[in-house]
Amino acid sequence: MLTISERLYKAAQPVWKECHEHPFVKGIGDGSLTIEQFRFYLLQDYLYLYDYARVFALGIVKSKDPKVMQLLSKSVDNILNGEMKIHRSYMERLGITEDQVFQVKPSLKNVAYTNYMLAVSHAGGIAEVLVSILACSWSYAEIGQVLAQAPGAADHTFYGEWITGYASPEYHSSNQALVELTDKLLEGCSEETYQRMEDIFVMCSRFELDFWEMSWRLES
Amino acid sequence: MLTISERLYKAAQPVWKECHEHPFVKGIGDGSLTIEQFRFYLLQDYLYLYDYARVFALGIVKSKDPKVMQLLSKSVDNILNGEMKIHRSYMERLGITEDQVFQVKPSLKNVAYTNYMLAVSHAGGIAEVLVSILACSWSYAEIGQVLAQAPGAADHTFYGEWITGYASPEYHSSNQALVELTDKLLEGCSEETYQRMEDIFVMCSRFELDFWEMSWRLES
Amino acid sequence: MLTISERLYKAAQPVWKECHEHPFVKGIGDGSLTIEQFRFYLLQDYLYLYDYARVFALGIVKSKDPKVMQLLSKSVDNILNGEMKIHRSYMERLGITEDQVFQVKPSLKNVAYTNYMLAVSHAGGIAEVLVSILACSWSYAEIGQVLAQAPGAADHTFYGEWITGYASPEYHSSNQALVELTDKLLEGCSEETYQRMEDIFVMCSRFELDFWEMSWRLES
Amino acid sequence: MLTISERLYKAAQPVWKECHEHPFVKGIGDGSLTIEQFRFYLLQDYLYLYDYARVFALGIVKSKDPKVMQLLSKSVDNILNGEMKIHRSYMERLGITEDQVFQVKPSLKNVAYTNYMLAVSHAGGIAEVLVSILACSWSYAEIGQVLAQAPGAADHTFYGEWITGYASPEYHSSNQALVELTDKLLEGCSEETYQRMEDIFVMCSRFELDFWEMSWRLES
Repeated sequence: MLTISERLYKAAQPVWKECHEHPFVKGIGDGSLTIEQFRFYLLQDYLYLYDYARVFALGIVKSKDPKVMQLLSKSVDNILNGEMKIHRSYMERLGITEDQVFQVKPSLKNVAYTNYMLAVSHAGGIAEVLVSILACSWSYAEIGQVLAQAPGAADHTFYGEWITGYASPEYHSSNQALVELTDKLLEGCSEETYQRMEDIFVMCSRFELDFWEMSWRLES
Repeated sequence: MLTISERLYKAAQPVWKECHEHPFVKGIGDGSLTIEQFRFYLLQDYLYLYDYARVFALGIVKSKDPKVMQLLSKSVDNILNGEMKIHRSYMERLGITEDQVFQVKPSLKNVAYTNYMLAVSHAGGIAEVLVSILACSWSYAEIGQVLAQAPGAADHTFYGEWITGYASPEYHSSNQALVELTDKLLEGCSEETYQRMEDIFVMCSRFELDFWEMSWRLES
Repeated sequence: MLTISERLYKAAQPVWKECHEHPFVKGIGDGSLTIEQFRFYLLQDYLYLYDYARVFALGIVKSKDPKVMQLLSKSVDNILNGEMKIHRSYMERLGITEDQVFQVKPSLKNVAYTNYMLAVSHAGGIAEVLVSILACSWSYAEIGQVLAQAPGAADHTFYGEWITGYASPEYHSSNQALVELTDKLLEGCSEETYQRMEDIFVMCSRFELDFWEMSWRLES
Repeated sequence: MLTISERLYKAAQPVWKECHEHPFVKGIGDGSLTIEQFRFYLLQDYLYLYDYARVFALGIVKSKDPKVMQLLSKSVDNILNGEMKIHRSYMERLGITEDQVFQVKPSLKNVAYTNYMLAVSHAGGIAEVLVSILACSWSYAEIGQVLAQAPGAADHTFYGEWITGYASPEYHSSNQALVELTDKLLEGCSEETYQRMEDIFVMCSRFELDFWEMSWRLES
């Protein structure tokens, strides 16, 4: 019998496959992505992460379990001071200051994605928070791992740092913690609850795909 | 000096112009819209209205003013039992039962729009609620009035009812109440607050445009 | 086997018994309550009802069921324009204008009660909303019925209107709708979920008791 | 002209004075408090801190300022892993395991206080969050400093650690950061906004006083 996370994963496969095959993602792997496209993506993703941290913070509000609260508290800190390290390193390389980022407006598709996660989390409980978060966390971990296996990709002078960041054991294990927590929390849930979770997970995956597409097309 | 609502209106003009010129909207006016497209729109819009009612309900939670609470309470009731009358009448004409509507999944763009309004309203106060609501309410009132002036449009056997519904004095005055309330609440607000409100109003207007486009293309 | 509402009812009995025996409640029944105490209560309860309406409004936000949304929408309207009728009638008798009420500050115990319901409802789902609401609604229905059976109580020139209001078939049936909805929503829930609901229901019942006590002592 | 924090401080003085003079607080200072009372307080306060962390987390959700988000993120972590150190140290001394704490039910007055902060923060913005937090943070910093000045108090074998914890430069400076942030955020706010903030600050101060009283009386 499949676990909840396995069912979610399976349900999102058609969309994840499109992500893996998206020219933006493939372009990071084979180095063909233009700096202009990556730069656009980087700035939008940097803005995204602040809202992503807010979703984790809502999990602290919603959870009744001290251990979960502590895990999420570390995640918020990891995002604001950890994951953003990759972004800040690239911003330095590209000569972008933080002030410049905050003059960029988040694009409609960025706003749509983050506000979906936020609305679902405000209205729901800790399960909704975790499942909202998971599509991003998990698909990035998988993309990191897939790209890292392509010969030379992880050593690419520009995109290698991005790939190794998301393929790192640290990123993998923090994602794994979310997967396991989701399974634990939703174990034995009703089919109706599962269905709602699947809707959220697939919807977030579609927003992920839109994010790659938006970045590829520089849609602001 | 412009009022807040006049500034919001002006800021959204480029997007509203695109709405007025959109083939879906023009197609309602000249009767060229296919029933298939209208049917698609109707079902999505019916699902939309439940979330729209939720945004008004959040306004009841957020407002400190009994009069505003009462107005919003009437609006929630008007949506759930009033505006939906147009929809239900068309559903009857098209032989769609309510059960059938709830088997339709809201499209990504529908979900994006409503969850944006909901997230902004959860995080913010009564001003965010009102400005989120206003783009839809006001642009529909304007579209209704514009289309009603086209010769024969209001009498069209199929689309006439839609046009006269949104061009009606009742719809106009309930929208006008929201415009005036917004002006009253935001009178003398800081430029920073205004700027945030403009961002919300323009973003919702862009989601409106996306909704017409999605309906035109039957994007589920 | 007991239904959820029967279990909740049973769990709250020790507190409800104290409510029924409280001198304030008994004083409404035998007419011994001073007008000063009732006046104090009336003003605090009037302020309470606005927050109570907000909790129902949060239920509209949280529910996924159109029928539940419609029921709650009617309830919000009933509170703001219905239940308040009893209050407004007494305010008229006592020569209190609405403006005067809004100059009264809600007492600490009033604030504690309503903000508990609001916080629980913001953090939780529709079940938390309903159970928060139920302690007030149900205990008032029961108090109304008990007092109405005391000879002469319902005909008392001053307190009779209050008693007959809460003993009315309308109040009974709107409370009954909440009881049934709670049972339907929580049917087959886990013991952990039930326990959380019991905590909320008993806590709200304790806040009810505090409210009578506060009114008896004129604690502002 | 007074700053916002100075005005808040002044408004709460009558209540803070009662806190300083409360037998529980004085009993920590002169060592006369019974271990039983302290133990009761410690367990309730430990439960309190989880909700207190949730209020900070809501601040991360509500703030639009990355710097504020980072500060609050550190605060959440400080509470869950820092301030709790004092508590955990005492729990060890008293032979209380964390599992035992979670079998304790939060008292009505504890629940009333934390849910007030949570409800106000859910409904409001970052200003409401900060002002809710401030009454606790600031009054503890002041109590720590006052008690630390009493001869021998900071060296008391049992209560000394508590006193030096809240009198520490670290606690002082983290409170100071909140005071300054509040002043910065509310600078130039309307009198209506200020009044709402004062209501919150004084209400939280009253809940603080209730917490000391509840602990003194072992009211569960």
